[in-house]
Amino acid sequence: MSRIGILGGGQLARMLVLAGAPLGLRFLVLDAAEGACAAELAPQLKADYRDEEALARFAGEVDVATFDFENVPADSAEWLATRVPVHPAPRALAVAQDRMAEKTLFSELGIPVPPFAPVDSRRSLDAALAHVGVPAILKTRRFGYDGKGQFRLRSGADADAAWAALGAAQGGLILEGFVPFDREISVVAVRGRDGAFRAWPIGENWHVDGVLSATLAPAVVDAALARRALDHARRVAEAVDYVGVFALELFVRDGEVLANEMAPRVHNSGHWTIEGAETSQFENHLRAVLGLPLGAVDARGWSCMLNWIGAMPTRDAVLAEPGGHWHDYGKTPRVGRKVGHATLRAETPEALAAVLERVGRALAREAQVAPVLARLRS
Amino acid sequence: MSRIGILGGGQLARMLVLAGAPLGLRFLVLDAAEGACAAELAPQLKADYRDEEALARFAGEVDVATFDFENVPADSAEWLATRVPVHPAPRALAVAQDRMAEKTLFSELGIPVPPFAPVDSRRSLDAALAHVGVPAILKTRRFGYDGKGQFRLRSGADADAAWAALGAAQGGLILEGFVPFDREISVVAVRGRDGAFRAWPIGENWHVDGVLSATLAPAVVDAALARRALDHARRVAEAVDYVGVFALELFVRDGEVLANEMAPRVHNSGHWTIEGAETSQFENHLRAVLGLPLGAVDARGWSCMLNWIGAMPTRDAVLAEPGGHWHDYGKTPRVGRKVGHATLRAETPEALAAVLERVGRALAREAQVAPVLARLRS
Ligand SMILES: Nc1ncnc2c1ncn2[C@@H]1O[C@H](COP(=O)(O)OP(=O)(O)OP(=O)(O)O)[C@@H](O)[C@H]1O
Ligand SMILES: Nc1ncnc2c1ncn2[C@@H]1O[C@H](COP(=O)(O)OP(=O)(O)OP(=O)(O)O)[C@@H](O)[C@H]1O
Repeated sequence: MSRIGILGGGQLARMLVLAGAPLGLRFLVLDAAEGACAAELAPQLKADYRDEEALARFAGEVDVATFDFENVPADSAEWLATRVPVHPAPRALAVAQDRMAEKTLFSELGIPVPPFAPVDSRRSLDAALAHVGVPAILKTRRFGYDGKGQFRLRSGADADAAWAALGAAQGGLILEGFVPFDREISVVAVRGRDGAFRAWPIGENWHVDGVLSATLAPAVVDAALARRALDHARRVAEAVDYVGVFALELFVRDGEVLANEMAPRVHNSGHWTIEGAETSQFENHLRAVLGLPLGAVDARGWSCMLNWIGAMPTRDAVLAEPGGHWHDYGKTPRVGRKVGHATLRAETPEALAAVLERVGRALAREAQVAPVLARLRS
Repeated sequence: MSRIGILGGGQLARMLVLAGAPLGLRFLVLDAAEGACAAELAPQLKADYRDEEALARFAGEVDVATFDFENVPADSAEWLATRVPVHPAPRALAVAQDRMAEKTLFSELGIPVPPFAPVDSRRSLDAALAHVGVPAILKTRRFGYDGKGQFRLRSGADADAAWAALGAAQGGLILEGFVPFDREISVVAVRGRDGAFRAWPIGENWHVDGVLSATLAPAVVDAALARRALDHARRVAEAVDYVGVFALELFVRDGEVLANEMAPRVHNSGHWTIEGAETSQFENHLRAVLGLPLGAVDARGWSCMLNWIGAMPTRDAVLAEPGGHWHDYGKTPRVGRKVGHATLRAETPEALAAVLERVGRALAREAQVAPVLARLRS
């Protein structure tokens, strides 16, 4: 019986625990927050990631450690890795934590990316703008999530405002060319300790205010494009000897894919795999981390995941759908917070469209389902 | 956010908790045992079912109560029902707890049953034998499970031995005609608070030493026979105004179905629904108990559930199968104890047979899979 340590106790940890219990696994989550939502299902060690004493206790109690939260300080992860196996390895985590390192790696691997340049002063922002062009997005290199720590520049005239907004951020900045993308997609994939690699069918994602709103999987994409995207994901994983589940987020523009970023953990755009695939991202992450055989990643029919942000809607309309599945993370409502999601599953794209239309209407979420409906009917 | 109280903290409670967490439910299990396996995932109130003080605390902390264990004393269930909604209702539980009441109800509903007669003295055993004939099985009316509390009589000459073995049992006995059945099947069904009724596809079951060993679902049965079995289940549920999931176990002989018994709870022969059906028996039980819409009960392909009794086998051979799913209840090994199960799922009966053959060989469990293989290939 193995005990898995998870750094971070949010909904990803919670879903890992739910997937791991049937495998006979026990868990310990390390999280400083009172009432972390995974703590309802697993014991919690309440401490900061930088608390060495807590880390030592944590290491002493688990057989292997992994992450719910990608911004665990690299030092802490490295220190932990001297005591207990940590997957993904701190080196892989470090690359994914820094947008500059990440994009540099993508480029080195021949994976197309938007133009980018590091920014560490007001002057270097001008240089970066000259290189990248406009429109562009200035982002913090570190600690960004859900579109936070970003500033959009329409022209060079926005440079002062952008610098005023983000210049003081820790860890430096990166300027990226703004991609007027046709779509956003993500590859959610898993790599085992033995190098085995499997990717779930690609998902198409829609964001609202920088936060994921909906995922459709399998995405309706050209097969050659899908192969290219999967191939990029595999090369990234191999380059950093990644172990576990990760997501590679990509922009699609004129039939080309450009890598945006890598999330070194189970990912919101992979939540549909709980019901929509033979093995979920959560179970396969645990299998990978433990060196067990990876599970099949085939899709079952078509799935659409809808994120619930801020507060949970009423659940009956989703539960009344034959393929309706509900996920309430047990969190206190708060503006902008991911509190749950639903997955709607159907055997055909047409049937899924009909379900989405009904659910969108019943929950007055027509706007949230509209882009997915448009894609399914295109 | 509702809190569900579960009387009993074994693997059924554990799987209810795993199914309920995504619905945002919280749980409290009442169980006297140290280290009840559901207690790893939910708080446990450690007390006997007859402990009124504990029952009062339990009632005070939950919104609705249900069962993992069907032999909770009827008094306790009734007392609890005066404080908090209890589903299934104590009356339904009482019928299912007593083989005599159960078989009498089946008969009244016109559901065929083996011949049976009550036995409460050595003399009445003779009378029962005269009525029922031989071979026959003498069973305790109450508290039987996994074939415990049963004695087989080949002829009248076995009466003394049977009486010596079971005569002292609490709650009286029942003599049943032994059915030389062709098959055993079960209907696992759910009934909502509003009377909505849904039954998963029928499963075929194989027992070893009175304990369930394997379930194949959907069972390969004649459609008319399946309709009859489902109809029996529906009538029983309506007769006792049942709310929640239950199983009706039936014998098949010469194309006829005979009801054996009703289990007033989620059932081992329904474990395959976790991966093999759109909604699991565990989730639908919770939906029913809470008055939520019931989920779809369609099967996804073909599933075979294999029970692990005594100790867990090694898991890799199952995990290496595309449709292989593992369930370790986290229990200490002990002879005869149900410690886990595996579900193997495939898109076709032929593919499932190939999987079972591989798994049977890898785990040296050829005998366990053999009857399922024979059925799939017939
Ligand atoms: N270069 C770009 N061009 C166009 N849109 C972009 C660009 N970078 C980011 N965006 C938009 O902002 C969203 C969030 O950006 P990004 O993924 O970089 O941030 P994040 O905060 O790490 O997000 P997440 O937590 O969703 O991974 C993207 O999904 C995309 O919609
Ligand atoms: N009348 C009968 N004729 C033939 N076999 C029988 C009969 N009654 C019981 N059996 C066999 O014994 C098994 C267990 O019997 P039964 O279901 O009555 O007991 P139980 O202890 O309540 O079992 P469970 O816990 O599996 O529900 C049956 O599945 C069947 O294989």
